[in-house]
Amino acid sequence: MKKLINNPDEVVKEMISGFLYAYPSYLRKLDNVDVVVRKTSPVDGKVGLVSGGGSGHEPAHAGYVGKGMLDAACLGAVFTSPTPDQIYEAIRAVDGGKGVLLIIKNYTGDVMNFEMAKEMAEMDGIKVLEVIVDDDVAVENSTYTQGRRGIAGTIFVHKIAGAKAEEGAELEEVKEVAEKVIKNLRSMGMAFTPCIVPAAGKPSFTLDEDEIEIGIGIHGEPGTHREKIKGAKEIVAELMDKIIIDLPFRDGDEVALMINGLGSTPLSELFIANKEVNEYLLGKNINVYKTYVGEYMTSLEMSGFSISLLKLDEELKSLLDASADTPAFKQFK
Amino acid sequence: MKKLINNPDEVVKEMISGFLYAYPSYLRKLDNVDVVVRKTSPVDGKVGLVSGGGSGHEPAHAGYVGKGMLDAACLGAVFTSPTPDQIYEAIRAVDGGKGVLLIIKNYTGDVMNFEMAKEMAEMDGIKVLEVIVDDDVAVENSTYTQGRRGIAGTIFVHKIAGAKAEEGAELEEVKEVAEKVIKNLRSMGMAFTPCIVPAAGKPSFTLDEDEIEIGIGIHGEPGTHREKIKGAKEIVAELMDKIIIDLPFRDGDEVALMINGLGSTPLSELFIANKEVNEYLLGKNINVYKTYVGEYMTSLEMSGFSISLLKLDEELKSLLDASADTPAFKQFK
Repeated sequence: MKKLINNPDEVVKEMISGFLYAYPSYLRKLDNVDVVVRKTSPVDGKVGLVSGGGSGHEPAHAGYVGKGMLDAACLGAVFTSPTPDQIYEAIRAVDGGKGVLLIIKNYTGDVMNFEMAKEMAEMDGIKVLEVIVDDDVAVENSTYTQGRRGIAGTIFVHKIAGAKAEEGAELEEVKEVAEKVIKNLRSMGMAFTPCIVPAAGKPSFTLDEDEIEIGIGIHGEPGTHREKIKGAKEIVAELMDKIIIDLPFRDGDEVALMINGLGSTPLSELFIANKEVNEYLLGKNINVYKTYVGEYMTSLEMSGFSISLLKLDEELKSLLDASADTPAFKQFK
Repeated sequence: MKKLINNPDEVVKEMISGFLYAYPSYLRKLDNVDVVVRKTSPVDGKVGLVSGGGSGHEPAHAGYVGKGMLDAACLGAVFTSPTPDQIYEAIRAVDGGKGVLLIIKNYTGDVMNFEMAKEMAEMDGIKVLEVIVDDDVAVENSTYTQGRRGIAGTIFVHKIAGAKAEEGAELEEVKEVAEKVIKNLRSMGMAFTPCIVPAAGKPSFTLDEDEIEIGIGIHGEPGTHREKIKGAKEIVAELMDKIIIDLPFRDGDEVALMINGLGSTPLSELFIANKEVNEYLLGKNINVYKTYVGEYMTSLEMSGFSISLLKLDEELKSLLDASADTPAFKQFK
């Protein structure tokens, strides 16, 4: 295992330290818990947005804390849900009087811990609502999930709910638009190689030199099947066929598109995938309104990528276009 | 070789296509040459900035074309200089009447081709100046270089010269500030694993499972030496010792810092490196004014990273702080 680390057991702690050194004008850490909040938290008169999850998916989620997106991110151990205590502290730190929305990826541990924290905060009189993101169409249940998994499409929920909250909307309205995003969002990924959790020191699974896994999860959970490697065009078509039919996305729809690298796939290859996705969508007369290509939700150094499609209406377009200024997601209106 | 591509010989062409699909509001491609320019080029009354180099370093350089940075990027074949014809077309496309500055990384082929293009454009009556970036302190000469190599610090030249040009400065002034950046800029990198040029299909060199290479170039050119793997703190100290002494950076200096991932090093590990660099600099009483952590100039899927330090004065701070809006580098003032 060749990693740029000091001690496998200190990876999250040291990463947070390096993260705070990089963005002192954006962020601060809460005392004694691995929670990162906006420097200015709580923001008075704004609904607070809290997300988080296991570490190892950087820049998710701490990279999305900032103006126009999240108020707090809770960082669990690598591929492990944050604890209820952590999430509870995050909720308390960002409640500006209008309540807090939790954005949870659908993994059993995450849902359980976020909901426990919600109950704890409600006992303090804080109004808390939640949404659960389950954008991955690959499999219905998996290693860590009942139902579908939440993957990179979650960034669209951060972005759009974040823009709504920034406008001064009420908690119920922010929740409503987050649910609209989730309802219109579909994703799917694939991998060329596994990743290595630092504390484990070896890959959690193996793939042959000519083998890929379709529908894999962001923790290396099994996908739909393995197959021989093939070209970018064929891989994209296989993922898109499953994504498109699921909503379904239809002739004339407008979409936001995210091509998300899982860790070690070069940006040049993600752009080749983007070409293939665009040509696929042109063939279906689906119009791409806005595109994001990069590493938004990774799996350590896994090689592979995911595609996320969000069907847009005028409200979602306007909120997606709003400016955002966070360490990992900056956009001018 | 497991890559997300269709045909090794079509990688650059298809990448550019996917790039243009992603950023139609920022960019357009010139007819018949692999040159990407701002959608609105030429910008009247603004010095044009042209950079470029071999492909395989994405998002460099096409990702930095946009407001506050470059006007054009010339994309060569993977790890191969763009041709004089390409660069000449780029110069012609972005000259807004105030002349054009070429920002060249110091590789023999690049320098030769950019200078030939400069002469061709001068024969058309276009005023062209050039700067050559040679920030890599690792080695004095290398596989593709006479003198020092230009690596990730080049992004600081794009940013600061770009901000100066955006202010309406004259060509000589833009060149002068670019040279000030180069004079105060030092970088060095290391690698855990090699990368695979698609058309070659296999790694250009190998490293043992417990071996790293210090001072490696962004094309896998030899560094200073190989050694057994060690912790992030020790690796950082080895690079920093060489960087710091070279300028030298001194007690009381203010710097901009870039921790640049070479391709497959997880962002979490780059943040651990950032922690170590910050602690190293604290120990020397050198103050970090602004930090950039991410993949700015990659080597396909190479695992490793580089550190760039730029010594700042008030002028450089102000230009570094200016807003920028390009596909790969966005910053609010």
